[in-house]
Amino acid sequence: MDHVIRPTLIIRESVCKNNIKRMAEKAAKSNVIFRPHFKTHQSEQVGNWFKDYGVKRITVSSAEMALKFAKAAWKDISIAFPANPREIPLYNELAGNIKLNLLIDSSEATQALAEKINKPTGVFIEIDNAYRRSGVPHIFEHKIDKIIGDIDKAQHLSFKGFLTHSGNTYAAAGTEEIRNIYQESIAVLRSLKEKYLPKYPGISISIGDTPSCSIVDDLSGADEIRPGNFVYYDLMQYYLGSCHMQDIAVAVACPVTGIYPERNEIVVYGGAVHLSKEHLDRNGKFYGLVVQFTDDGWTEPISETSVISLSQEHGIIRTTADFLSSVKHGDLLGILPVHSCLAADLLKENSFVI
Amino acid sequence: MDHVIRPTLIIRESVCKNNIKRMAEKAAKSNVIFRPHFKTHQSEQVGNWFKDYGVKRITVSSAEMALKFAKAAWKDISIAFPANPREIPLYNELAGNIKLNLLIDSSEATQALAEKINKPTGVFIEIDNAYRRSGVPHIFEHKIDKIIGDIDKAQHLSFKGFLTHSGNTYAAAGTEEIRNIYQESIAVLRSLKEKYLPKYPGISISIGDTPSCSIVDDLSGADEIRPGNFVYYDLMQYYLGSCHMQDIAVAVACPVTGIYPERNEIVVYGGAVHLSKEHLDRNGKFYGLVVQFTDDGWTEPISETSVISLSQEHGIIRTTADFLSSVKHGDLLGILPVHSCLAADLLKENSFVI
Repeated sequence: MDHVIRPTLIIRESVCKNNIKRMAEKAAKSNVIFRPHFKTHQSEQVGNWFKDYGVKRITVSSAEMALKFAKAAWKDISIAFPANPREIPLYNELAGNIKLNLLIDSSEATQALAEKINKPTGVFIEIDNAYRRSGVPHIFEHKIDKIIGDIDKAQHLSFKGFLTHSGNTYAAAGTEEIRNIYQESIAVLRSLKEKYLPKYPGISISIGDTPSCSIVDDLSGADEIRPGNFVYYDLMQYYLGSCHMQDIAVAVACPVTGIYPERNEIVVYGGAVHLSKEHLDRNGKFYGLVVQFTDDGWTEPISETSVISLSQEHGIIRTTADFLSSVKHGDLLGILPVHSCLAADLLKENSFVI
Repeated sequence: MDHVIRPTLIIRESVCKNNIKRMAEKAAKSNVIFRPHFKTHQSEQVGNWFKDYGVKRITVSSAEMALKFAKAAWKDISIAFPANPREIPLYNELAGNIKLNLLIDSSEATQALAEKINKPTGVFIEIDNAYRRSGVPHIFEHKIDKIIGDIDKAQHLSFKGFLTHSGNTYAAAGTEEIRNIYQESIAVLRSLKEKYLPKYPGISISIGDTPSCSIVDDLSGADEIRPGNFVYYDLMQYYLGSCHMQDIAVAVACPVTGIYPERNEIVVYGGAVHLSKEHLDRNGKFYGLVVQFTDDGWTEPISETSVISLSQEHGIIRTTADFLSSVKHGDLLGILPVHSCLAADLLKENSFVI
């Protein structure tokens, strides 16, 4: 830790590997394909840890990320973001080297791909169950039929099945609601699969979100799961009930640059460009909780202590007189991020593994 | 624009240069040193545009940024972030090559520097008027005396004066309040300067925030100004009254990847990792306004249209049926950012100038 001079993402290998192991075992027990989403860590090193658990297929959220992991010898990649017609040359480059799956939710997108994709490429149809981000609403059967018809006509596209991301679990009031959202999603996707299976015997259904995959014990209703955040977890997942505090595998190490006893506040070098402005609101807004580093990791969060404000490079921690008096200028404090995907993205060139 | 395949920061050179010219002229008329903050653009190219307006001294917010601009031949740099004891070796490296100023707000920080700084280095004392981020509260005269005493004793440190960032202008209800905050800050810094000037005849006072520097006409109360955001401006500044809509010099170009007439929404490739989660709330939360690109820039914001939600890579735009029907899959839409400093930081490797 003595080498940490600026905000740095500290990744706990043992915690991270436990998170991977737990999810891999659940996938195996549920007899579903485990295709983890690598957008959270975006790290070749962390990616390699998945290989020990038999993972060969992965998910990413951009063509850029797919190229990065294809270079790192991953051979079967789904880009779980609606196909972007401006990146078709990159898709062709990828599909020439790896097994590539894309995501579509419109006839327009399918036709754009049909016209310019010149290598064998799988396509999943994204279904919008209730999240209202991307995807075809499952009730629009004529649209789904039209897209499948367009895929059939395309020389290099093959229909792989139905995929959804139930991001609405992030707004759920509790684990019971998350289970319900999961069951509804599975029911919708299974009925679509059953409808089209006779004509397309190879199709599968793929689900994604970390809250569902963490909270639901039996995932056998799906054919494939694509959780991403679970590799690190974070405070958002903790408060959703997806993980325990000790499952959070990352903390941002921040140097203390100011101590203000008159207002029980500490300023650290660690701001919006390191943690992101993602926040939670539980009796007040906060951008992270504070831990102290130990020989092999970090403590539980310090009580009555949180990051209450962020500007570009400054983080303001409000705490107790007691904790404040124990902190010295130049100390390192750890901040558990609200949303590890964003913090890890911001610090992808400034991280290390313990 | 045909080459834009993913979220890209588009910088309008003419607008940007106008913003620089206006601020440089105001500084000259007010007879204050113009030491612009480069944390907003972090760009060598944009930095060079300042040279045409006589700028030789700059501000940055980290040692890393100072090293970058020192390499780009900037010879007089202030790091306007509380000195970080863990980066003292970098400060020495810098101070060996350029004229360096650091910021301190405690005796502890001063003593840490005194012990390890081995090249001539200027130090400003940061004063906290009312913002409550970093800085010594101006009423703590004994603390200020102690810090100055510590500087006097340090072999390589020289006392440069008092600096403040009135970030509380960002929470102001209107331009009148911003003027009042500015006047109060100036009054506080001037009285400190007058007190210490007899013993330290070279000291000056430095103020910073873009709202004050944009809204107040006569800045002659200060000796130096350090605005940063004004180079690009953004929606936050527009609603504060710091700029006109046409002064906003950056838009994030985002490919359209989904069109949903049933809910009057468009999904673009452009999310929290491109725009940041900074938002405004004016009859509803939003993360950006939407423009269309023209031959030499972009239109005014499309009416009744805004970015209502962001996930890691997706942006959801809510709009009218009318505008929605004019948009095609694969089009590029421009998003005016809420906070250009954060968007520019996120897209610093993915930007271009028009």
